[in-house]
Amino acid sequence: MKYVGKSIPRNDGFDKATGLGQFTVDVTMPHMLYAKVLRSPYAHARVVKIDTSAAEALPGVEAVCTFENTTDKPFNTSATMVTTPRPAEPVRDQTVFTGEPKYIGDEIAAVAAQTEAIAEQAVKLIKVEYEELPAVYDPLEALKPEAPEVQPVFGNKEHKNVCGEIVRIPFCAEEEFGPETMEHGFAKADVIVEADIKLPRVKQCQMEVHAAVASYKANGTLEIISTTQTPTPTKMIVAYALDLPESKVRVRNPPYLGGGFGVRIGISGKAEILAAVLSMKALRPVKLVYTREEDFLASDTRHGGYLHARLGAKKDGTFVALDTTAWLNTGAYCTFGVELLAVCGVCGTAGTYRIPYLNYAGYPVYTHQQTAGAFRGFGTPQGTAVVEACVDKMAQALNMDPIQLRKMNTMGPDDKNFFPFTVGSVGTNECLDKAAAEIGWAEKRGQPKTGNKRRGVGIACNTHVSNAAPFCVDYNAVNLTIEQDGTLRVNSAIPEIGPGSTTALLQVACDLLGVPFETATMIFGDSSAAPFDIGSHATRTLYSVSQVLKDAAEELKADILSYAAGHDFLDTDPAKLSLEDGIVQGGSRPLPLKELAYEAHLRGKQFLSTKCKVPENSLPFAAQAAEVEVDMELGLVKVLKIAAAHDVGHVVNPRLCEGQVEGGVLQGVGWAVREEMTYVEGEGFYNEGFHKYMLPTADDRPEIVSILVESEDPKGIFGMKGIGEVGCIPTLPAIFSAVEDATGVRFQEAPLTPDRVLAGLKAAGKI
Amino acid sequence: MKYVGKSIPRNDGFDKATGLGQFTVDVTMPHMLYAKVLRSPYAHARVVKIDTSAAEALPGVEAVCTFENTTDKPFNTSATMVTTPRPAEPVRDQTVFTGEPKYIGDEIAAVAAQTEAIAEQAVKLIKVEYEELPAVYDPLEALKPEAPEVQPVFGNKEHKNVCGEIVRIPFCAEEEFGPETMEHGFAKADVIVEADIKLPRVKQCQMEVHAAVASYKANGTLEIISTTQTPTPTKMIVAYALDLPESKVRVRNPPYLGGGFGVRIGISGKAEILAAVLSMKALRPVKLVYTREEDFLASDTRHGGYLHARLGAKKDGTFVALDTTAWLNTGAYCTFGVELLAVCGVCGTAGTYRIPYLNYAGYPVYTHQQTAGAFRGFGTPQGTAVVEACVDKMAQALNMDPIQLRKMNTMGPDDKNFFPFTVGSVGTNECLDKAAAEIGWAEKRGQPKTGNKRRGVGIACNTHVSNAAPFCVDYNAVNLTIEQDGTLRVNSAIPEIGPGSTTALLQVACDLLGVPFETATMIFGDSSAAPFDIGSHATRTLYSVSQVLKDAAEELKADILSYAAGHDFLDTDPAKLSLEDGIVQGGSRPLPLKELAYEAHLRGKQFLSTKCKVPENSLPFAAQAAEVEVDMELGLVKVLKIAAAHDVGHVVNPRLCEGQVEGGVLQGVGWAVREEMTYVEGEGFYNEGFHKYMLPTADDRPEIVSILVESEDPKGIFGMKGIGEVGCIPTLPAIFSAVEDATGVRFQEAPLTPDRVLAGLKAAGKI
Repeated sequence: MKYVGKSIPRNDGFDKATGLGQFTVDVTMPHMLYAKVLRSPYAHARVVKIDTSAAEALPGVEAVCTFENTTDKPFNTSATMVTTPRPAEPVRDQTVFTGEPKYIGDEIAAVAAQTEAIAEQAVKLIKVEYEELPAVYDPLEALKPEAPEVQPVFGNKEHKNVCGEIVRIPFCAEEEFGPETMEHGFAKADVIVEADIKLPRVKQCQMEVHAAVASYKANGTLEIISTTQTPTPTKMIVAYALDLPESKVRVRNPPYLGGGFGVRIGISGKAEILAAVLSMKALRPVKLVYTREEDFLASDTRHGGYLHARLGAKKDGTFVALDTTAWLNTGAYCTFGVELLAVCGVCGTAGTYRIPYLNYAGYPVYTHQQTAGAFRGFGTPQGTAVVEACVDKMAQALNMDPIQLRKMNTMGPDDKNFFPFTVGSVGTNECLDKAAAEIGWAEKRGQPKTGNKRRGVGIACNTHVSNAAPFCVDYNAVNLTIEQDGTLRVNSAIPEIGPGSTTALLQVACDLLGVPFETATMIFGDSSAAPFDIGSHATRTLYSVSQVLKDAAEELKADILSYAAGHDFLDTDPAKLSLEDGIVQGGSRPLPLKELAYEAHLRGKQFLSTKCKVPENSLPFAAQAAEVEVDMELGLVKVLKIAAAHDVGHVVNPRLCEGQVEGGVLQGVGWAVREEMTYVEGEGFYNEGFHKYMLPTADDRPEIVSILVESEDPKGIFGMKGIGEVGCIPTLPAIFSAVEDATGVRFQEAPLTPDRVLAGLKAAGKI
Repeated sequence: MKYVGKSIPRNDGFDKATGLGQFTVDVTMPHMLYAKVLRSPYAHARVVKIDTSAAEALPGVEAVCTFENTTDKPFNTSATMVTTPRPAEPVRDQTVFTGEPKYIGDEIAAVAAQTEAIAEQAVKLIKVEYEELPAVYDPLEALKPEAPEVQPVFGNKEHKNVCGEIVRIPFCAEEEFGPETMEHGFAKADVIVEADIKLPRVKQCQMEVHAAVASYKANGTLEIISTTQTPTPTKMIVAYALDLPESKVRVRNPPYLGGGFGVRIGISGKAEILAAVLSMKALRPVKLVYTREEDFLASDTRHGGYLHARLGAKKDGTFVALDTTAWLNTGAYCTFGVELLAVCGVCGTAGTYRIPYLNYAGYPVYTHQQTAGAFRGFGTPQGTAVVEACVDKMAQALNMDPIQLRKMNTMGPDDKNFFPFTVGSVGTNECLDKAAAEIGWAEKRGQPKTGNKRRGVGIACNTHVSNAAPFCVDYNAVNLTIEQDGTLRVNSAIPEIGPGSTTALLQVACDLLGVPFETATMIFGDSSAAPFDIGSHATRTLYSVSQVLKDAAEELKADILSYAAGHDFLDTDPAKLSLEDGIVQGGSRPLPLKELAYEAHLRGKQFLSTKCKVPENSLPFAAQAAEVEVDMELGLVKVLKIAAAHDVGHVVNPRLCEGQVEGGVLQGVGWAVREEMTYVEGEGFYNEGFHKYMLPTADDRPEIVSILVESEDPKGIFGMKGIGEVGCIPTLPAIFSAVEDATGVRFQEAPLTPDRVLAGLKAAGKI
């Protein structure tokens, strides 16, 4: 391998560092209009009357769309995929606009006008009369019989306010799973512990707000340039919702977008679909750029809610049974509610340890708040938080070292638990050892504490996935093209949402094919410049696209070598030839691909390959150790250091890998100690911008040490696994564990804000 | 065929009619700069000194490029192709800038600045000291030994000022061609006639001026959005000239361009390469939009010059020998000089009639004028003009009806003449008959004339090609994609330069595959969104791309039917199935492709096909009859009517076909009676804009009757031939023939301006 393993600088770095990169906000088109949205001020209401006449009469207004004059076909803004087992189409409970708003921010109408100022003024001129209706905000409240019903049409008919289905996942390695199986399991345990955790709603806070420019033409085509992190699925969702042929909808990035973290799998907020319906009405291009307030107010968050776990173990520490329940607040609409609760169970509760008796129930619960959806980790962070709390409790109950307890229970290569495939390579124990060593576990853990500022160390481990197969539809297709001068072009519809996937994938492609990286290019982020690709999410981009690249590169190389072997070139057996760094070797002379491709071109032949592939799935394991300092007087938790050891299978680009780990850790720190969306009844979320939402700042950033462990997974190309999400998952439980080590209190609610810490310390009699 | 043969409205019509279509001038990018060019005021000079310091010091100027600080690698702005027989790379005699300008307008330097006004001011601040050198303007003068040498480095070493090679094409059906063959041929003739014609330099006058936005990035990629009519070859030329890997250069249309007529095969003027070198220096996107004056002054024209033909026939009219010579003014640089002279010979002089003894010599001659290059017809109009004059003379000499004489000599399906393939289907005689009938030949031709305004009718016939194979490298590759809802997307890098090719091609694709046109889309005009395509020229787009579409559609259909036959769908033999209008028929039930594609998608399978193909070539034959009225007092020639009968093989879209014929005819009318670039020594061409260049106006437009003849060519898909260029070719000789019928004078110089007509009438004693 000439490129895999090297920290090649990212191809998009210069553009992003200098401001030359084009983002959606930079896009202009002839005769483009600007859009603004009218949103509900009520958490639950019915529009009694809407009068748009004054808005329509305002000079410069070109289109006013409301729930009354726009398609009311229900769709799902995020999910195109069908969950396993089939048939289970996504819950489609959302419309472009609504006359019965279900959260503060729900879309009632939108305006397209010649300037942003006119559009804003027009929105204010729309007169709406509302009838306010009763609302519910907490998932546990919403499950009660007396709660108001959030989705009377699309909600679960048996379980009040359950979105889709209660996700029930049973597993037993020793008997057929029945009603009493878990009782059998816990009966075999010598010690049983339980843990609860309450997790806040947090926001992705990606750098770029949601934005889209939609251009619908009278010939029936719709072109959208937007911030989506999944151009092809977004195309499918828009085509479905607006009843357009998919071939006539093109969705592309411009080509850059400022991050995603899951918030724009499918539609970016509702930017694409709102811009599209306005464009269809005005027959002009329409640009909609969310304000940061709208982004906070009206696009998906991470699911907050409640989790409970019960863990049973033998005296020697061997885990025998784990039963977990999650009640998560999916908000007013489903988006990924069902899928995310499943991942919470599969990866979050049962992905790390070998446990013969396993059960999980996940409740995706509708409330009258904005929708929760995908956020880096996709349910695994929530499940991991409660299970790791249980494991720590078990270590205390058994008086064992938490690392020792973990190591003796981690899954092996042939284990499966909830997974429909065996695990493959497992680097968990190496991660645990390396994280522990880096944090100074042996010297620091369990030391007696005194004084006002108390330090402690903690640890947690976890897994996630490297893509969504076989749980959901997940595959990629690519076109490989050898240009007339022998250089490689890779066309894939994956976006570049920030991690540098398009650089790392080129490294992989060049090593797979045997051509120089310096002359290769990737065309990305355009649903019409490549075949199907499911986008950047589920830790999948580098891992999954590498798999289809392998097939395509093999076909392409075979074609090249076969052509080089004949056609008056090398006159030999293709099997004797190889392609190395752009030169066909093994023949009578080294034949540069540059020469071969040009000669082939003169004869009307181009080397091309198109392939399509459902990927394998590999589990990235991780352990993070945290050191914290708790100010016992002020309740301040300062995270000093995170030692993040990650089994990435095989490192493709060390610098990019570390970037993923560091970014993930910092998000984990925010989740653990800073970030929280606070709901104020009648007003909505207090935190509608960065001035009120406590993202960790430079001062909150701990020392982060990334340790990359290579377990060489047999399923991954060159042994690789994914790394995109796993870094943000173990940070919270590791910090909670460290805080417990420092203070003697195991907190059960995040984030660890000063008031919460002081209250907890007081309740436990520690101050 | 459900779509082929129907006048389906063009997909780009709405955009173009409403101004919504995006053209290069509409493109903006973050931090984009604006460029202006410094051009030589001398036809031939040497730059003694250039001082850019004042320009560089001007605030807002970001880059100044001159011949001193820019690559001087020679390249050819138009040709990427190698002529047959190989090896013969194009003549590469041009550099981005020059210190020895060779025509008034030659590029010395260029500036990129924050505004157009600053760029313009900066250009004026560049101080250049020139040493003026002797120049030559006329091709016959330039061939003389005493003429100054235009291209001392790249010119032909044996023949002064010949560009590349003298193109010599011999053919004899009866003996091996030797030095005396033509003498043998003419010895067999009973009658020999000769004709001369002098043709003006004329301009393409495409609606949109040349323009490009180039964005070079520090990661080595160069993206160009421009007015090119050949995105992929333009990419190759730019990559070659700037020593960049082809994979790193992306050239696309935005997606529309306002016509081409050959003027931007390869680089648009020099817009792409000038914008690119400025962008590489500034590391910022650079936009260069030519003024109309620059477009006139410094981009290719049609070749003007001199032609002589000598035709021998038997007493009964049977042609036996034709010897033609062309001396065409290629200007300061070659571009397509050599290739065009070859086409002049092959198609223009020898493409229509069966003649056993044939010879042709073509002189592409360098002069100190702006470069001539491709212009609709590409040499065939010039060759046809002189041969048709000869044929008319022969009819007079033999006292035969000109139509009768033509019909008895037209080529048959198995003839070849200069062509490397047999002709295929021939509709020439049907065209002659229908054009004659429509114009009223029998009643009007040869009638005695009196009075001031005299009417006459004339006729001419001709052929051209349907692509450039096998003369040059000419092939196409496409990607076909079935989207997840079963709709078709065709990716081809062909541009839409105006004729509606992207609509007609979709008609063909949908009929080939058996899917609905309404839900199919074509992605075009982007060198990175599809594999190789050689662009829109040589009458090739619809004809050639249809051929590769056929291969790709067959592969795709086989994949679809095979999948439908198994995989729990129809459980039958694929051979029993067919795809009709988007439904798989012949199985146990009609299976919509929509359902099949979605089910396949859920299983991780997409229907895709990528193919590459060298096309066959078919000859489109035509005859046009003209009726004119000559004002004997004022010398005004008014073209009253053109009956244009065209053998298009098989009509794909009648309305688009007629559009091509009508547009061609009007260009032919302009060439015959109005258009001429007049060179003023020391000043350059007088006609630097539409106020001084006499394009035909609405008042000049004759009645045009398009007659589409279908000869069903076995080589063309669905029997089609090309139609893009042939319409402009026979108009001039038909008008000259009609003017002769009206006045008794056969003019030998175009255009037939009043002064020229009066002088001719006077010289012939007619007034």
